[in-house]
Formats: sequence, structure tokens, C-alpha cells
Amino acid sequence: MTFLVVNGPNLNLLGQRDPRLYGTLTLSELEARVQDRARDLGVEVEFFQSNSEGALIDHLQREAPRSQGVIINPGAYSHYSLALRDTLENLKVPVVEVHLSNIHAREPFRRHSVTAEVAKGTIAGLGWYGYVAALEYLVANAT
Amino acid sequence: MTFLVVNGPNLNLLGQRDPRLYGTLTLSELEARVQDRARDLGVEVEFFQSNSEGALIDHLQREAPRSQGVIINPGAYSHYSLALRDTLENLKVPVVEVHLSNIHAREPFRRHSVTAEVAKGTIAGLGWYGYVAALEYLVANAT
Amino acid sequence: MTFLVVNGPNLNLLGQRDPRLYGTLTLSELEARVQDRARDLGVEVEFFQSNSEGALIDHLQREAPRSQGVIINPGAYSHYSLALRDTLENLKVPVVEVHLSNIHAREPFRRHSVTAEVAKGTIAGLGWYGYVAALEYLVANAT
Amino acid sequence: MTFLVVNGPNLNLLGQRDPRLYGTLTLSELEARVQDRARDLGVEVEFFQSNSEGALIDHLQREAPRSQGVIINPGAYSHYSLALRDTLENLKVPVVEVHLSNIHAREPFRRHSVTAEVAKGTIAGLGWYGYVAALEYLVANAT
Amino acid sequence: MTFLVVNGPNLNLLGQRDPRLYGTLTLSELEARVQDRARDLGVEVEFFQSNSEGALIDHLQREAPRSQGVIINPGAYSHYSLALRDTLENLKVPVVEVHLSNIHAREPFRRHSVTAEVAKGTIAGLGWYGYVAALEYLVANAT
Amino acid sequence: MTFLVVNGPNLNLLGQRDPRLYGTLTLSELEARVQDRARDLGVEVEFFQSNSEGALIDHLQREAPRSQGVIINPGAYSHYSLALRDTLENLKVPVVEVHLSNIHAREPFRRHSVTAEVAKGTIAGLGWYGYVAALEYLVANAT
Amino acid sequence: MTFLVVNGPNLNLLGQRDPRLYGTLTLSELEARVQDRARDLGVEVEFFQSNSEGALIDHLQREAPRSQGVIINPGAYSHYSLALRDTLENLKVPVVEVHLSNIHAREPFRRHSVTAEVAKGTIAGLGWYGYVAALEYLVANAT
Amino acid sequence: MTFLVVNGPNLNLLGQRDPRLYGTLTLSELEARVQDRARDLGVEVEFFQSNSEGALIDHLQREAPRSQGVIINPGAYSHYSLALRDTLENLKVPVVEVHLSNIHAREPFRRHSVTAEVAKGTIAGLGWYGYVAALEYLVANAT
Amino acid sequence: MTFLVVNGPNLNLLGQRDPRLYGTLTLSELEARVQDRARDLGVEVEFFQSNSEGALIDHLQREAPRSQGVIINPGAYSHYSLALRDTLENLKVPVVEVHLSNIHAREPFRRHSVTAEVAKGTIAGLGWYGYVAALEYLVANAT
Amino acid sequence: MTFLVVNGPNLNLLGQRDPRLYGTLTLSELEARVQDRARDLGVEVEFFQSNSEGALIDHLQREAPRSQGVIINPGAYSHYSLALRDTLENLKVPVVEVHLSNIHAREPFRRHSVTAEVAKGTIAGLGWYGYVAALEYLVANAT
Amino acid sequence: MTFLVVNGPNLNLLGQRDPRLYGTLTLSELEARVQDRARDLGVEVEFFQSNSEGALIDHLQREAPRSQGVIINPGAYSHYSLALRDTLENLKVPVVEVHLSNIHAREPFRRHSVTAEVAKGTIAGLGWYGYVAALEYLVANAT
Amino acid sequence: MTFLVVNGPNLNLLGQRDPRLYGTLTLSELEARVQDRARDLGVEVEFFQSNSEGALIDHLQREAPRSQGVIINPGAYSHYSLALRDTLENLKVPVVEVHLSNIHAREPFRRHSVTAEVAKGTIAGLGWYGYVAALEYLVANAT
Repeated sequence: MTFLVVNGPNLNLLGQRDPRLYGTLTLSELEARVQDRARDLGVEVEFFQSNSEGALIDHLQREAPRSQGVIINPGAYSHYSLALRDTLENLKVPVVEVHLSNIHAREPFRRHSVTAEVAKGTIAGLGWYGYVAALEYLVANAT
Repeated sequence: MTFLVVNGPNLNLLGQRDPRLYGTLTLSELEARVQDRARDLGVEVEFFQSNSEGALIDHLQREAPRSQGVIINPGAYSHYSLALRDTLENLKVPVVEVHLSNIHAREPFRRHSVTAEVAKGTIAGLGWYGYVAALEYLVANAT
Repeated sequence: MTFLVVNGPNLNLLGQRDPRLYGTLTLSELEARVQDRARDLGVEVEFFQSNSEGALIDHLQREAPRSQGVIINPGAYSHYSLALRDTLENLKVPVVEVHLSNIHAREPFRRHSVTAEVAKGTIAGLGWYGYVAALEYLVANAT
Repeated sequence: MTFLVVNGPNLNLLGQRDPRLYGTLTLSELEARVQDRARDLGVEVEFFQSNSEGALIDHLQREAPRSQGVIINPGAYSHYSLALRDTLENLKVPVVEVHLSNIHAREPFRRHSVTAEVAKGTIAGLGWYGYVAALEYLVANAT
Repeated sequence: MTFLVVNGPNLNLLGQRDPRLYGTLTLSELEARVQDRARDLGVEVEFFQSNSEGALIDHLQREAPRSQGVIINPGAYSHYSLALRDTLENLKVPVVEVHLSNIHAREPFRRHSVTAEVAKGTIAGLGWYGYVAALEYLVANAT
Repeated sequence: MTFLVVNGPNLNLLGQRDPRLYGTLTLSELEARVQDRARDLGVEVEFFQSNSEGALIDHLQREAPRSQGVIINPGAYSHYSLALRDTLENLKVPVVEVHLSNIHAREPFRRHSVTAEVAKGTIAGLGWYGYVAALEYLVANAT
Repeated sequence: MTFLVVNGPNLNLLGQRDPRLYGTLTLSELEARVQDRARDLGVEVEFFQSNSEGALIDHLQREAPRSQGVIINPGAYSHYSLALRDTLENLKVPVVEVHLSNIHAREPFRRHSVTAEVAKGTIAGLGWYGYVAALEYLVANAT
Repeated sequence: MTFLVVNGPNLNLLGQRDPRLYGTLTLSELEARVQDRARDLGVEVEFFQSNSEGALIDHLQREAPRSQGVIINPGAYSHYSLALRDTLENLKVPVVEVHLSNIHAREPFRRHSVTAEVAKGTIAGLGWYGYVAALEYLVANAT
Repeated sequence: MTFLVVNGPNLNLLGQRDPRLYGTLTLSELEARVQDRARDLGVEVEFFQSNSEGALIDHLQREAPRSQGVIINPGAYSHYSLALRDTLENLKVPVVEVHLSNIHAREPFRRHSVTAEVAKGTIAGLGWYGYVAALEYLVANAT
Repeated sequence: MTFLVVNGPNLNLLGQRDPRLYGTLTLSELEARVQDRARDLGVEVEFFQSNSEGALIDHLQREAPRSQGVIINPGAYSHYSLALRDTLENLKVPVVEVHLSNIHAREPFRRHSVTAEVAKGTIAGLGWYGYVAALEYLVANAT
Repeated sequence: MTFLVVNGPNLNLLGQRDPRLYGTLTLSELEARVQDRARDLGVEVEFFQSNSEGALIDHLQREAPRSQGVIINPGAYSHYSLALRDTLENLKVPVVEVHLSNIHAREPFRRHSVTAEVAKGTIAGLGWYGYVAALEYLVANAT
Repeated sequence: MTFLVVNGPNLNLLGQRDPRLYGTLTLSELEARVQDRARDLGVEVEFFQSNSEGALIDHLQREAPRSQGVIINPGAYSHYSLALRDTLENLKVPVVEVHLSNIHAREPFRRHSVTAEVAKGTIAGLGWYGYVAALEYLVANAT
């Protein structure tokens, strides 16, 4: 079983962004923690990050069909990328949307996620653990 | 270490409500699964459910201070109970808000949660697993 | 056959509230008129009034399943109680929402009823007769 | 005593429109049921249907003054015909607005009725029985 | 020189509508006053009233081109008849919109006139004198 | 096979309205072009124009059921005639809505069409060719 | 009998402002025309212009009580000066609000006049003639 | 003379809530200060606090009629409890609404109070002194 | 200790404005009552009234720095004078905003005060007593 | 003569997306049908698809100037890509916007197209035929 | 060549207002820096500051016509003074609007400037340098 | 010292876009002018333009940290690219946002810039000079 872990714009700078919101882990440290849990669960995870809306769509269109599920943190694209929303809606595998910070407790424009509308579920504000919980959920519910 | 698991209005009817949205587990079955994981983690969990906004506030004011964290599914109160929001904001222990269904994929009025604004984080759409993940997060981050 | 007649906040003061809007009947006089018609129709009616959102939900959850229908005047809870709305939506028996005054001809906040969205139908502005008409409808359509 | 029963646009097609919303009765069958009850109550009813806003206004201006009350289903004109609203507001006899389906449970644009603001009361979602209940109310309250 | 005086829905009932808003003059009395002034000014006036949006449009399309200007009180159609607005915008003669009452001091929905957007000017709240002033203006500015 | 071509308010004045928006063709010239293409395609077309909302509804209710499809330019009624919308929604034959000008590039109130919501498709801004394309589409998809 | 003619901000520059909107008359030429008509009507008019909201309020408070009516063009203050609105509402003499251009045909912010809500009536788009018509109305209705 | 002092949700925790907003006084210390002033003024005060909307309504319905006035701090219920608003509107004694913090200087949702709309007056931001001032006002204006 | 008492537009006409809203006291009578209480409290009060936004700002900028606090009734400027708001925000002494009438119970535009956002607190609806209570508060909290 | 046919995000997956909305044709089958008609009309068509907003802009900037017109289906970018809108507005050749499904009959966010505001015309809901009709229109109107 | 430098309300207090937003320069120090650059550029600058909307309008009407351009910081009047907007729109010389702080990064009400709509350009957030840059621009573009 | 000059979508076409809004300079001519001034000031400038949101983010993430400041014209991305906004907010060097045209005087959607909210300051409407002024500001304030 394989799962995609997809991170959107500015998440490559994790660890440098405001640590009160995003924590001090770098993206590769975060990915390592997810990798560890994947190993425990006996599944594969494949990581991808891009700042480009089009590249995220290309990646999901190409890779998701051969996976059993997608964990995605669309970053700011969550709030306006209807193109990404269409891509996610079109997938046949379950999607869990993750945000490191609690988007409901920040600027008003972050409260609404257009991509969350087509996800199976969402996790926000639990830092790197959100990715791990999403993985556990997807593994447990994969058939 | 003790954690509160608080469920709001209509969650006592779990298993009878629309199973496509809420699953077929009853509330006591759900609580049993959380209890199992708590036992594995070596922590206490205390369950409470009420349909009354005032009773939820009373309970949280009285019990939360002696706990290490709160897992709450405020049900429909999420969307308008500013009184419950004030109670949660006032707590000194971390709060994780859980919804069984993905509130972002339902009626527009369910997309905004006034209580989520003062929570540490939120989990929605992952069914009973959301409670378990919230517990794991709180235990891992309790000092 | 049994039908519930449920009245929400401030309806216990009927007869004392602005008589131009609500008429001069007291709640027990109103209930007596409904009782009379029920007797003519050969059905049971059970009355309940509470100012508490939680108590209304508790009552409906407990009593409605053994009834053939619910007549409810949610009072001001009509306009914001999403918790009560969830309860009503969850019932398997038909619900008719009744308002004594014409809520469409009053303050703007009274024009929208969140509970009416999940009712079978609504009657407003016909005073105590609204309850009687609701009862006749429910009896005629009960199987 | 005479009462007007006025039906607006597309109600002439009753029975052909979506039966889940509007039932299977034709307009003349519906009128027959109202006629039956009128006979029982010992009053006259006069029926009128038009798809034209102007014709509805003409009819109400001309016929309502010699009646003791109006039962009107303005159809979609409910939601925007301020001209019809002015006509109804100007009448000296009581008006009850009836809708076959529960307009609060449908598209957002159907939730607000500009004509209901000037009616004595409204009934929605009770099918043909709504007309009968309106008639009973008007007869009982006619002086 | 000929000018059209066009009155929309419910204005045929002038004198019977709320006299605090509309005065006690009937429509024919009002037209007589306009006729008197027209005679003084040495111009023709032609009167038309209809409750029908389509009839108003038909009349304006047919008669306005051979006139030197239009005085119109669109009644409630002012607030939503975009079809009438298109007709007026299309006329090559100047249009003055008149309202008997001050529409800015009444219900919110009366504050915006879609037809006024394409008129030369508007007069509101001056009762029958508004028609006379409109006529004087049009005569003085006719070439 | 027969198709209806229905034009709404002010379209009878085509050729006289602002030619930058609507072109210089008259309505009968436009209808002649549609007639020509119909002849090529071996189908019947029947034309109707009215400024009256009620007359448009009457016509559609009466004539559409014996046709294989409707091409309609509702003019300004597109933007507010919920009664016409109900009529179109109720038809069992496909409807294509056509606008001569690009309604998305004009005043804000023209950007939203309530009738388009219940059409099969829409064409705007392509002048008289829009009617022809609609006809070709309907013929090709008629069974 | 005395009437006040009050002009607000930027109206002292009349004749220099965009002549398509405001015409080519200067303020003193406009006042001369009003003076001429006042002489014909046998009444006094007193003119005042200021760019200052406070000065307009001071003037109206001091001078209006000894007049029989006020003609005011509040200029842009129409759209936001609630202080001026309070002053006008407080006057015991009738007020007619005049605008040289048709404010309904310009920028959206000019469509709503907060001062018009408390006036007896309004005239817009008729240029200098609007002042004259307002004067005639006030004289005719003065007691 | 007796006056009610009613405090809503979370006010029982006074002194523990954010002291920059609410001060360091506990609720009983605050009540003691009001009691002291009542003694000076020679009147009775009765205190009540509840987190439950229904209990607040019950209390006011039962106790207010035998009092000469009500001082109420509805806490967060100010912003949405239309049921409490109906109760207060129905009282025959004057009501002063008090808030410890200046609700106009906080989150947007706190700027509008639905209960203040039916109060005699409001005091906000003056801490415990607000209750005392409200009492003085009510005593001075009691007949 | 000196305190400023500043009144905005139209408050010079107190006693002449609608007495149901504003009472029958004139401004100088109101100031006399505040003066009396100041004498009892052993402090100075300085009164100022202007209809001019600029004059109010000039006065506050010049006089407030040598005072211990400001009591201001900005009248209608409360609802839109962002310039006055900036002045008040900039003061280093506490400000209490007072309104004679309950602004929450009047027209919608009066419900929001931009100046209250930067005040220490507000009092509305308590008539002249509001000024006295504000003074007592400021004196008690002055250092 | 050459025309561009440009397809935006997710349209490469045509045939796999919800066939009730988008039909069962793949993108290359759709392009083949357009190619066929182009051959009949004796013109060239060049196809391009990208999921990337930047790539679509680059392509249009580079290729459109040497074409005689553009047929574009911007997919979800229609609803928010102001950058693409600027590119299209800047083109000197005519643009027809095409949507496979009727965007007016779907989610509210799909009802408004920012790119359609700068197109010559739009076609929606006619499936692959929309592209063909757009081509015919452009060819017929090319000079 | 002469240029006006006009500062609106509360800018006379520069240096005393919040230095994080406005810097520590006083207005006369700021004016001195502008004067220095004017000397370098060989042009005249004339300074004016007022807290009064009317005085600002008077000054601009009187002085701007003999200048070659206007640099204005309207302070809070930017956000609502439609009267000042009309004055600026009416000027025949170019206007540059300057704000010391970045108005887009502050309270929502500061994000929209009604006066900027009629300016040639705007500079915000660059402190005193904004005035200097505006002057350089105006000098370079003066003919 | 090095500064980045970054231009967003469609700015590569400068000189070809509507010259009334954007002037006749090409992008390389504009860059040359900025280069000239940089040489005078003794600093380095590096230019970058892209139509791709992702490429702009990549560039800023990679290059900005080794610069002393960023001058950016995000083009239409200003109005919706929350991803770009996050990138800019994350930078540790100051950012000045520049627009060639006065975005406040154009379509409503251009009035709000989400990127300006996180910039140090903004310049709009001053054409190429805006870039030069931004550079001077950044150089003068670089440490």
C-alpha cells in the first residue's frame, strides 16, 4: 500500500516560518517522522512539495491513481485554488487535508478551505502529528 | 493524567442519526474505543454528554481544570454558541475539537465553527478515529 | 395515535405578551382548544413547554419516537437553534412548525427559521388555530 | 360570505410538476376539495389562476373588495413581485398565503416571500390541505 | 408637442391607498391637474395606466417615439423590473420618473430604483405636483 | 421535428437598440436566418416574441410539450423572473438560453441569470449566430 | 414667507465642474433664477453655501425655524452626513432635497442619500429647474 | 424596592478570566460592592448567575415582575440569544444591560448585542462600576 | 483634577429634539447637573459643544492633554467620523462615550459606533445620568 | 487562418471526470471532432492544454497574436484567475469561452466567470459541440 | 512652479501619535524635509494642515488652481469624505495621495480610500519619504 | 547592497498593454531606468519576471534572503494570490509593492491587494517612477 504526502506553497520553508504558528521542524524532519510511522504500519509513503499550483495538480493526477490515499497540506491554495479542488474531487482515493496551524484561529481568509469541501476529512492545528494521524486513518480504512 | 471527552447535542443518538454522515457506532461504542486507547496509553478519560449548552459549560468549568486536556465535539453548538466559546477560551488546558463528519462538505452553516477559533486544533470527517487521534495528540503533548 | 405539542421559550407567558402579536389566550387555554379538537379526532395529544433549548431537545429525543407526529412552536429558537434543528431533522415522524404571529411581517431576524428547513410544513400568523390545523393535517396524513 | 382562491404562475400545471414537491393532484382536483369544504362551511369560494402578474393584480383589485378574505398561492411571484405585494397590502380583507411545498426547505431564493410580509398568515408544505386550513381560518375569523 | 404620462401597478387605486403616503386624490383627479397645466403650457398629454409590466412596455415602445418626453411612475416595478428599465433606456426621448411618496423614507426595498438609473431625472415625495413639475421641465427642455 | 424560438421583452425592437451591443439585424431578419438553417436541417421552427412575462409562460406551457426543444432569449427576465424559471424547469424538452450580447461583460445585474440555472446550456455574445448554434445543438441531440 | 436655499460642498464651483453632469450655470446664476421665481411667487428666499458640514448645520439650526421651508442640495454630504441628517430631521419646516444630476445614474455610492430619508421629497437630475420646482412646491403647500 | 442583578455564562469565573479585560474582582466581591451601594440607597438587590439560557429566562420570568428593575450582564448570550431578548422585551420593568469590558473594542461578533435592543440602556467597559451606576439610575428613575 | 465634557452635533438643541428619545432637559440644564456632581466630587469640569467635526478635533487635541479624562457624546459623528476616532485613540487620558438614547434600539446605522471602539467604555440610554455616571467613573479611576 | 483551442486545468482527464457533467469523450476525441470541423471549414486549429495558470498565460501571449481567434475553456481558472483575465483582455483577437457543463446550474462559485467578462462570447453546457460552435462563429466573423 | 502639500486631521500631532505607525518626526520636521527637496528641485511648496473637512476643501478650491500639483494626506478623511473626493476630482492639476503608514496593513476600514479613486497615484507606508517621492514625481511630470 | 525587482503576470507585455493605463515603456526600458538609478545610488538590482505564481514564489524564496529588499509588482496576483502573500510575509527583508496604474481608480476587484497587507509600503499610479521611488526608499532605509 502506498500513500502520497503532498505539501503546497511555502511549506518547503518549514522551520523558518513563524515558529509560534508552524513549529521548528523542517519539512524533511517532518517527512522523516511520517516515514517512521509508515514503516511501523508497513506501508509506503511518497513525498512531494511544490509552490506551483499546476505542478501540484500534475502530480496528483499522475500519482494518486496508483496510491491508496492522499495526505495533502495545500497551504494557502486551500483558500482559493478551485483548480486544485477539482483535481481532488476527481480522485477516486480518499484525501485527508492537513494544516499545521489551526486555520480557524487566524486571519479570516484562512477560515474557509475550498479544498476541504471535497476531502474525506481535515486535521488542523496539531502540527506534524496531523500528518501521522491522517496516515493512520487512511491505512486503517484502506481496503 | 486525565482527559475529558465531551459530546454535545444529539450525539447521544449516535448510530441512529444518518449513518452515511455519522457512521453506525453508538456513543457508548465510540466511548469504548476511546477508553481502549486510553488504557493503552496509560491515561484516564472521563466521558460526558449533554444536549444543554448550560450543562456543557458547567461541566467544563468544573472538570477541565483538574484535567490535562479536553476533547470536545460541540455538535451544532460549534456554529453559534459564543458562550461555550468563552468557556473554552478561558480554559488553561489544551482543547481539540472533533467532528465525526466533514463539516466543510455539508450545509454552509456548518462550515464555520466559533468554538474552533479558540481550540488548539480540530479534526473533522474521520469518524470515531478523530477522538482517538485527539487523545494521542493531547497525551503526547501533555507535560 | 399520539401527537406531541411542544412550545419553546416565553410561550408559557402567552396572554401576557403583546396581545396584538400573540392574542389574549393563555397557554393552557390554547392547549385546551387543541385538546378539544384531538378528542373530536380521536387521538391523544401530549403537551410540553420549556424555556431551555436542552430540555426541548431531551423531550423530543425521548418522546417523539413513540408519537405519530410533532407540532412545535420553537419560539425564538427557530431563528438560531441549530441543535434543535438537528434534533428535528433526525426524527422519523413528521413535524409541523407553528408560529402564533406572522414571523414574515416582523423584525428581519424573525424572517428566517432554521428549524423550518427540516419540518414537513409551517403555519404562521393564524394564532391558536395554527396548532389545530397542524393537528388535523398530521392526523389526516398519519398511516 | 365569499372567499377568493387565487393561484399564480405554473399552478395550472399542478399534477404535472415534480410530484415529490407538489403532489399528484391537478389544480381542478385541488379546487374541488376546497369547494367541498366551503360547502360544508356554508360559504362561497371563487377560483382564479393566472400566469400573469398584471392579471393577478387586476383580479385582486376588482374582486377582493366584495369578498371576506383571500387565499393566495402566488407561486414564484412570492419571491419578487413587489407590485403584487402592494396590491395585497392595500386590501382591506384578510389574506392567507399558501404554498404547497415547504418553501423553507428548498432553494435559498424561495425562503423569502415578499408577499408574506403583508399577509395575515402563511401555510407552507401541507399540500392541498393548506388551502382548506386557510379557508377554515378565514371563515372562523370573518365577522 | 405631446408627452406621455404613464402610471404603473396599483396607481389606478389612488385615493384608496394609504392617504398618509399617497394623498386623497384619485388617479383621474391627478390626471386632470396635469391636463390643466398641459393646457396652460400649450402641449398635449396622453395618459396610460396598467398593472401589467408587459402592457407598460408595449405602450412605451409604441407611443413614446412619437412623443417629446415621458413622465412615468412605475410604482413597485421601479424596484425590480429590469425589462421596463431596458425599454426606458432604449427610448430616444427624455424620461422623468415620479413617485408620489418619498421612496427614500420607506421600506429599504423601495430605496433603490432600477428604472431611475436610466431616467433623465426623478421627483419623489411631492405628491401630484411631481407630475406637473416633470411636465414643466420636459416642456422647457424640449427642442 | 419542431423547435420553439422564443424572444422576451424588448427583443421586438432589435435593430433599433444599441447596435454596439445588439447588432443591426431586426428580429424578423434574425428569425429568417434561423429559418434558413432550420430548412437546411430539415426541421420546423416556430417563432414567438412577447414583452409580457405571463404571455411567455403561457406560450411555453402550451407549445413546448409538442416540440423537441426550446431556444429562448428571455431578455431582462433572465435576471429576475423566477416564474419563467419555474416554467422552464418544468419542461420535459431541452432548453438552450441565448443572449445576443455577452451578459458577463455588462452591468453587474446582468451577470446572473436565474433562468440559465434550469437550462441545458447557454450561449451569449455571439449575436444571431447563437440562435443558429443552439438549433444545431438541439437537432443533433434530439432523439 | 421666507424659504432657505442651502447648497453644500463644491457647489460654489458650479459652472466649473463637469458640465455634462452639472450644466454650465454658475451658482450665482442659478440663485438668480430661483430669486426670479421667488419674486413671481411673492416670497423671500435666502441663499447659503458652505463646504463645511458644521457650518451647514449651524446655519440650518439658526435660520430654518424662522422660515417656511428649506431647499437643500447637500452635495456629497447626502451620502454620509448623519449629523446633517439629524439636523434636517429635527426641523419643523418641510425640506426638499435637490440634486442637479441624476444621482441614481452615477457611481454606486451616490445612489443612497441618508439625508433624503428625512426630507419631504427629492428632485434629482433636472438641473437648476429642480430648485425652482422645489420652491413652487413649498410655496403651494405652505400654510 | 427590589432590583435583580443577573449575570450570564462564565461570569461565575470572574477573577479567573483574562484580568486585562475583566479585572481581578470575583463575582461575589462584585456583588458585595453592588450590595453596599444598595444599602446606601435603601433598596434590596437579589443576585443570580447561571450558565444556562433557559435558567436565565426562567429566573427573569419568575422574579422580574415583583422587582422594580433588572440589571443584567448576559455575557455571550448578548450576541445571539433571541430567546432571552424576547424575555427582556416582555418585562414591564426597566432593564439596564451591563458589560464589564468595552464590547465595542473587541472581536467583531461582540459589537452587536441583540438584548441591548430591548433594554432601557447599556453600560460597557466600566468594570464593576457599571453595575453600581445601573443601580443608581434604576433607583433614581423608579416610581 | 479637570475633566472635559464634549458634546457633538445637534446636542445644542437638546430639549427641542424628540423628547421621547432625548428627554426635555436643555443642554445647559444637563451641564448644570454635571457641574453639581463635579462640585460634590471636588473636581473641575469644562464644557464644549460644536456641530463641526474639525472644531471637536481641535478642542480635544488642545484641551484633553491637560485634563484627567474626557466625557464625549459625539452625536451622529459616532457612526462615521474616523477622524474623530483617530483623535480619541491618540489621547492619553481615558474617554467615556455617552449617548442620551439607547442607540442599539434605533435605526440600524446607529448601532455601530466607530468612536466607541477606542473609548474606555460607553453608556447609552440613561439620559443625563449617563454623563454623571461617566464623571464618577473617571474620578474614581483617576490617579 | 489559424485558431487556438486552449484547455485549462483537469480537462486532460476528460472522460474520466464525472460523465454526467462532462460526457464520456476524452480530450483527444474532443480535439479530433474540432479538427474535423476545422478541416471542413478550411482552417487550422492548434490545441494546447495545461494545468498551470502561468503556462496558459505564456502560451496565449506567445501564440495568440499570430492566430485569428481563441477558443478557451479555462476550467476552474474561470472563477478566480485575474491574471489569465488580464492576458485575455490584452489580446487583439476575439476570444470565445467554452464550458462543457452548464456552469450556471452547479455550485454557486461556478456561476461567475472573471474571464468571461473580457471574452467576445461564451458557450456553456453544450458539451464538445460548444467548441465546434465557437470555431464556426470565429471563422464566420474573421476578416 | 508651485505645489501644495496638504495634511488632514490629526497630522498636526505627528511625532506624538503611535511612533511604530507614524514615525517620530513632527509635522514641521516633515515639512522641512519636503522643503529641502523642493529647493533642490527649484520649485515652491506651500504647506497647509487642518482638522476640518470644510477648511481642506476651501483651501484646495482656492489654492490648487494656481499650483502645478497637489500632494495630499487626507488622514482618516480618505476613508469617507466624499465631499473631499469631489473637490479633488474637480481639480485640473494632478494629485498624489500619501499615507505615512501602510493603510493596507491596518484596520479593515483603512483599506479603502475614496479619495484615492480620483488621485493620479498613491504612496503609502514609506513615511516622510512618500511626500518627497510624490513631489519628485509631480515635478518630473509637470509641463 | 542588492535589491530584487520582481514583475508578475502580463508585465512582460508592457508597452503593448493599454497605454492609457500602463504607459508606452517596454519592460526592458523600465528596467533600464531602474538600473540607471541603481548605478547612481551605488547598488545592485536584479530583475525577474514571470507569469507563473509558483515561479515567482520559488524566485523570492531563493533570492530574497541574500538581498536587502524587494520591489514587487505582482500584477493581478496582488488581488488573490494568498500563496504569494505568505511568501512575502515570510521574508525578512522589506518589500515595497508597486503598481504602474492607480489600482484604486479601476475595476472594483483591483482595489484590494492581499499582498500589500504584508508589504512595508505601496506605490501605485506613478508609472515607472514608482519602481525608482521604491528603490530610493529601500536604499535609504537599508542598514
